[in-house]
This record gives sequence, C-alpha cells and structure tokens, in this order.
Amino acid sequence: METLVPRSTCHHTTIRIATGCPTEFIDLTARIEALVSQADLRFGFVNIQSLHTTAAIVLNEHEPLLLTDFETLLDRAAPQQAGYRHDDATIRRVNVTADERINGHAHCRALLLGSSVCLNVVDGRLQLGRWQRVFLVELDGPRARDISILMLGEGGR
Amino acid sequence: METLVPRSTCHHTTIRIATGCPTEFIDLTARIEALVSQADLRFGFVNIQSLHTTAAIVLNEHEPLLLTDFETLLDRAAPQQAGYRHDDATIRRVNVTADERINGHAHCRALLLGSSVCLNVVDGRLQLGRWQRVFLVELDGPRARDISILMLGEGGR
Amino acid sequence: METLVPRSTCHHTTIRIATGCPTEFIDLTARIEALVSQADLRFGFVNIQSLHTTAAIVLNEHEPLLLTDFETLLDRAAPQQAGYRHDDATIRRVNVTADERINGHAHCRALLLGSSVCLNVVDGRLQLGRWQRVFLVELDGPRARDISILMLGEGGR
Repeated sequence: METLVPRSTCHHTTIRIATGCPTEFIDLTARIEALVSQADLRFGFVNIQSLHTTAAIVLNEHEPLLLTDFETLLDRAAPQQAGYRHDDATIRRVNVTADERINGHAHCRALLLGSSVCLNVVDGRLQLGRWQRVFLVELDGPRARDISILMLGEGGR
Repeated sequence: METLVPRSTCHHTTIRIATGCPTEFIDLTARIEALVSQADLRFGFVNIQSLHTTAAIVLNEHEPLLLTDFETLLDRAAPQQAGYRHDDATIRRVNVTADERINGHAHCRALLLGSSVCLNVVDGRLQLGRWQRVFLVELDGPRARDISILMLGEGGR
Repeated sequence: METLVPRSTCHHTTIRIATGCPTEFIDLTARIEALVSQADLRFGFVNIQSLHTTAAIVLNEHEPLLLTDFETLLDRAAPQQAGYRHDDATIRRVNVTADERINGHAHCRALLLGSSVCLNVVDGRLQLGRWQRVFLVELDGPRARDISILMLGEGGR
C-alpha cells in the first residue's frame, strides 16, 4: 500500500504580455492553468499580481460585447478627460519621467479594479466557475506588462 | 515536556447559497469561522472565492441601512437601465444560453467589487475587525451560488 | 556540500497607524519590506489586511498629485453629501455607538477599494513593480487603524 505524504510546494513565474491598445482585456486563463499543471500543485493558492499601477487583474466573463461594457463603465467612473492633477506638467514634481504619459484616468481605473487576484487550486484544478476567466486589464497601453504568478500549497502524486 | 511541531495543513470546502432577491448581501462570517475551527487551522490564510461572474465577495459592516446604501452606490456606478451591449440580443453571438438574463449591470458591479477575499487566521482565529463581516453579494438573483473556500497554513494544537 | 531543504514558515504582526486627516493615503511599503526581511521569508505570500470597514488597502503610485486625484475619484463615486441611510439617526437601529460618525460615504468608498492586498515574495523580495507602493487608505479619519500582516511560505537560506 502506498502512503501519500503531502509535500509543500512553491513555484514562481513572471510572464510578459505586449498589449496593443489603450484599453484591452487579455485572457490569461489558459496560461495560468498550464502553470498550475506544470507546477504539480494539488491544493493551494495561485496569486496573480500585476506589477504595474495602470494595469489590473480581474475575473469575469469572456464575452466581447461585455468587455466593451466594462470599458464604458470605467470611462464613466474615471473619464479620460476629467483633468487629473497627475497629468498637469505645470505643477507636477514627483516621479516625472522622460516618456511621461497622460494617464491619470488609467491610475484611477486601476485603483478601482485592483492589482491582483488570489485563486484556489483543488485536486490539481484551478477553481473557476463556468463563466469565470482571468484577465489582465490594460488601462494605458500599448505597453509591455509583467505579471508575477506565485503558487503555494501541497504538491503532487 | 511537549514539543509543538507545526504541521502544514490544507482544507477545502464548497458551500452553496440559495439567494432570494436581485441584489442581496448574505453574511457568511459564522460559516467561515466554523470552517476555520473544524479545519484546526492555527496560522494561515482563508481564501473565499465566488465561482460566479455576477456575485462578489466583500468585507464590510452588517448594518441593514448601510446595505441599502451599498445598493444605491452600485446602482449609481452601473445603472440597471444603462443599456449594456452584453444584453443586446440583436448583436450578441458569444456565450448565449437558453436562460439568458438581462444582467450587464450585474457583471459591471461584480467587476468593481471583486470575486474573492483572502483573510488571515492567527492562533486559530479569523482576523476580523470589530465591525467586519464577510458577505456574498448577489447581483443577479435569485440564483444558487457556489463559493470555494480554501484554508492553508499551520495546523494543530 | 550543503543541501538546502525548504522549511515552511509563518509570521504574523499587527501594526497600528494613527491617521491625521478625513482622507489620507499612508505608504506602508517600507514597513512591509522590513517585515518580510525580518521574517526570513524566501518564497510565499504576504497578506495585508485592514481590520476596519472605513479604511482600505491598495496598491498604486506614490505621487502626491495623483493621491488628490484618487480623492476626487472617490468623492465622485460616493459623494460625502449623498445622504446615506446609515447616517440617518431617525431610522438607524443596529450597531449604534456613542461616538457614531457621519460616515456612510466612507463605508461605500472602502467597499469599492477593498480591505486587503495579497503580495508575492520571491527570493526574499516583495514583488512590486517600479511604481507600486502599498497604501493604507484612511476614509473616515483621524483614527487609530490596525493592520494584520501574515506571511506564509518557505523560509530561510
């Protein structure tokens, strides 16, 4: 008889995504599922963390019209033309870079959406409901975006 | 003399909640506390994850009038009648089901609130402030809702 | 030859912050980094959890003008003078305290921002992008605020 002793496991990966539009929803679900499978994680957490202040991580349905509704929602909550002090070069003194963009709206939208999502893994499978998908939300693209993915829990067979 | 060696522990449960209203805040705190106690988790995390795209998990105060204020807030941020493309049967082609509901507003509200909450457990007790309670937020009810709850950390006495 | 056997590690701290304004962003990054270093956490998670219903934890850029933009955003989403039922002493019956404040707006803002952030730690370093900082967001200050910080993962050298 074989005794299965759970062993602690921990894996980390950074993935880079090149976005193509100012606002864009990039479905990461298949990539995350592949990482969980490769890591041989049986039970535990996957924390998916954007390393940016104008890109978010969210869960919702991958239906193209709904993604345009989300864009409308974000534009209502933090309109691009609302006049952000962050974008006022006449008064701004901190964190000014050579390639500074007009992106106060993007920071505000990221604040509302959140930077990371922590998901459960059970019996080797990422826990997602029928319609749930994991998205990187680009809010100030196009840019290269890095996402830190850490898996912690009990491993393998 | 007894030596206390911490041992890694991991438990998972799915709970099902039948909601009764279009918008509803269901207090899960007592259920989560009971699960932590049963799992004998001493130090670690409890990640409470909604498996739906129109139901959220949040922390806040359980005061009935405040919950109606939250409903007003959500209605201001994503009005039910704003005309969502997700609900337009003349153009919608993806993920169409037989029992499709008019629920673009519910997806938008869920996006703002978030799908999961990760809580700390210390010395066997769920860390919650005096007024903090864990809520499932139904945004497109009534429906049956499943919540995945995973606990990971150090067990035992 | 030395064999590096990962050992499970778990540390918890509560930090108290005295805030000075009704709305305030307090940068916790250096404190969190010091805690990760002291805990000798090599790989794992740090979950930073506000123990309050009118104070949030968020990630974004520490640029003073941007923080005023965030305040404007919150005031648009949940205006202070919108007339919250939670603040109506003529109908309120639940959770009434002697030092009750007019703070319906603060609860609504906290609901949108979220109570906690879970961050990855890799090779002993808190994973944060170039501009990312961890903030406690005071929404109903001045007050004394407690933050629960739990670190779980693999320790040591």
